[in-house]
Amino acid sequence: MLVSRSERVATIALNRPDRMNAWTPTMEAEVRAALEAAAGDPEIRAIVLTGEGRAFCAGADMAALSASSGGTAAAPPPEDRGTSDLAQRYSYLLGIPKPIIAAINGAAAGVGLCLALYCDLRFVASGAKLTTAFARRGLVAEHGSAWLLPRLVGPMNAADLLMSGRVIEAAEADRIGLARMLPAEDFRNAVQRYAADLANLASPRSVGIIKRQLQEAWVQRLGEAVRASEDEIRRCRETEDFREGVAHYVEKRLPAFTGR
Amino acid sequence: MLVSRSERVATIALNRPDRMNAWTPTMEAEVRAALEAAAGDPEIRAIVLTGEGRAFCAGADMAALSASSGGTAAAPPPEDRGTSDLAQRYSYLLGIPKPIIAAINGAAAGVGLCLALYCDLRFVASGAKLTTAFARRGLVAEHGSAWLLPRLVGPMNAADLLMSGRVIEAAEADRIGLARMLPAEDFRNAVQRYAADLANLASPRSVGIIKRQLQEAWVQRLGEAVRASEDEIRRCRETEDFREGVAHYVEKRLPAFTGR
Amino acid sequence: MLVSRSERVATIALNRPDRMNAWTPTMEAEVRAALEAAAGDPEIRAIVLTGEGRAFCAGADMAALSASSGGTAAAPPPEDRGTSDLAQRYSYLLGIPKPIIAAINGAAAGVGLCLALYCDLRFVASGAKLTTAFARRGLVAEHGSAWLLPRLVGPMNAADLLMSGRVIEAAEADRIGLARMLPAEDFRNAVQRYAADLANLASPRSVGIIKRQLQEAWVQRLGEAVRASEDEIRRCRETEDFREGVAHYVEKRLPAFTGR
Repeated sequence: MLVSRSERVATIALNRPDRMNAWTPTMEAEVRAALEAAAGDPEIRAIVLTGEGRAFCAGADMAALSASSGGTAAAPPPEDRGTSDLAQRYSYLLGIPKPIIAAINGAAAGVGLCLALYCDLRFVASGAKLTTAFARRGLVAEHGSAWLLPRLVGPMNAADLLMSGRVIEAAEADRIGLARMLPAEDFRNAVQRYAADLANLASPRSVGIIKRQLQEAWVQRLGEAVRASEDEIRRCRETEDFREGVAHYVEKRLPAFTGR
Repeated sequence: MLVSRSERVATIALNRPDRMNAWTPTMEAEVRAALEAAAGDPEIRAIVLTGEGRAFCAGADMAALSASSGGTAAAPPPEDRGTSDLAQRYSYLLGIPKPIIAAINGAAAGVGLCLALYCDLRFVASGAKLTTAFARRGLVAEHGSAWLLPRLVGPMNAADLLMSGRVIEAAEADRIGLARMLPAEDFRNAVQRYAADLANLASPRSVGIIKRQLQEAWVQRLGEAVRASEDEIRRCRETEDFREGVAHYVEKRLPAFTGR
Repeated sequence: MLVSRSERVATIALNRPDRMNAWTPTMEAEVRAALEAAAGDPEIRAIVLTGEGRAFCAGADMAALSASSGGTAAAPPPEDRGTSDLAQRYSYLLGIPKPIIAAINGAAAGVGLCLALYCDLRFVASGAKLTTAFARRGLVAEHGSAWLLPRLVGPMNAADLLMSGRVIEAAEADRIGLARMLPAEDFRNAVQRYAADLANLASPRSVGIIKRQLQEAWVQRLGEAVRASEDEIRRCRETEDFREGVAHYVEKRLPAFTGR
């Protein structure tokens, strides 16, 4: 796994290009550690998750799956993470108070696609291919994808992608709202420009609270959400970032947010 | 009503073409019987619902509605089906553990459109016209369409379609995500190809479970959905379909799923 | 504020064009009074909310915000409105039993955009610019926008718009389903034609009930929504509007609904 940093953006890249970045327990632990490091780093305000080489992540390593289906390897028993929505195997991404952007540079399948679903935004390079794949492996909607996909692309597209397990191209992913397509040529730079704007033009304090508001809204009623937002606004009025947010606008200059 | 079978796909066609397949209590009973027969038939793995002639289903038969509005015929009292989400008049379609595809070959109005909303996927032939119609008949959002439409096409498009009762063309239905448009010329064949792929390339066991996962996700929290999917995955690992799902992929051949 | 009436449509226009219709407490009170008057007027069946001049509403008046961030003006304490979903500061729009259409003629920012989110439909003039703006002011998702936006445009677009605070053009707003773009040239007339059709071709009784059904569906299960719609249908069968809804269709003439 490679981590690079530029303009307050951390880019975490899966790095088994010869294996299409197929997912392994080692990778899972490394990605989590890198995300948590970026979350804790005060210099980092946005995170990009991508893959080295031609693929984003081709799904679970077939060698492991194959062994498991032959009965030679047992599936690891899941740890007990409790029932909390943001404490599950991959849902912890939704609890990280910084924007996480999936830069789907190439093929994304199975758990590789699920990983991208837990990001706040998804860009996909033209020509990349995506598939849930599960139904064609005799598996089911894994990792909460039956919950996430209908909310992200509507129940019809979710049923299509999950039941058929078919491969879609970037252009279709864009059309159904799964990811935003960008030209493959300048893909990584274009994503970096988006992420850097997010990191430098928005208050990191605001962004972190907004990410939490969006998660909480799934289980709130409208009235609760409105009242919670009013409480947050009262707290904003005491902050440096609010003063700077108004000041840079009135003075027509770039902001210098501190996150306080 | 006509039922045909090909490549593990059952096609159920409303067959009152001279009446634009207007919906009657007889038809309602016949469609339900045909769907339940297809559900119980181990040779069938996908179901297509369509109409003979120029229309899909023009809605409730106006002769019946007209009599009812004149007070000469009473509306039938609803049977008591309890409160279960999947036990209502048309919601039983969502409980059938096989994919149901609406092939909207022509006009779909009122209850005809609602029927399509309860299918897992909707294809619409170019040129076909769709309308909820209710508000222009002095009626309201029937058959749970006020619940389904906002989830399928978002609350703004749902409000437009339900409040205005206006007629939209296939191209607009495609644009708002209500149905996928296919050329009218080869419509039935194109739908059959999609359905046959679903029937033959995906594990029927997987598809049935995924359909249930998608329904359950409406009332689950994310954490519950993740944990339920992990339980399902453990059960998959013992199945023939999982072994076949990995084997055909590794051996680069078409799958031969048994559903076990 | 200007109110005009035509073809059973009331048009309420924010009228501080020299200030880009920036939002003030006075405007807030006037808009509420005008909406409630239109709601109570039996001659009015649809409401359009728009702005005079080049902007729809540029958000909170910066003079007020600036004073507030400097500590010279206190934010007003919120009145206690209880927890009811439709009794909050702007959510009362969702409780008005007539369709409210936002005609976004030009720039919409911050609270101006939120106001449009509480309308049933949004049209936007080509070239208009929209932004949540909050994160660039050091603020958070205000007025329930973290609840509304994911439901209107999906969680990915909501995260993009709220976290980045970036400005989007009308064409992008149309693409993500936030608003329907119409040519700027004939914008007000085109919206009026849509609103007049809604006011004159649909039963106002039906439209009011449908608006309520759509709100209630957010917190209902499917089974409840179906059963509630069946209760409403039984009540419809006794109404003038249902008789007229069938009669005008059978007689192939325009309807003359009374709302009874």
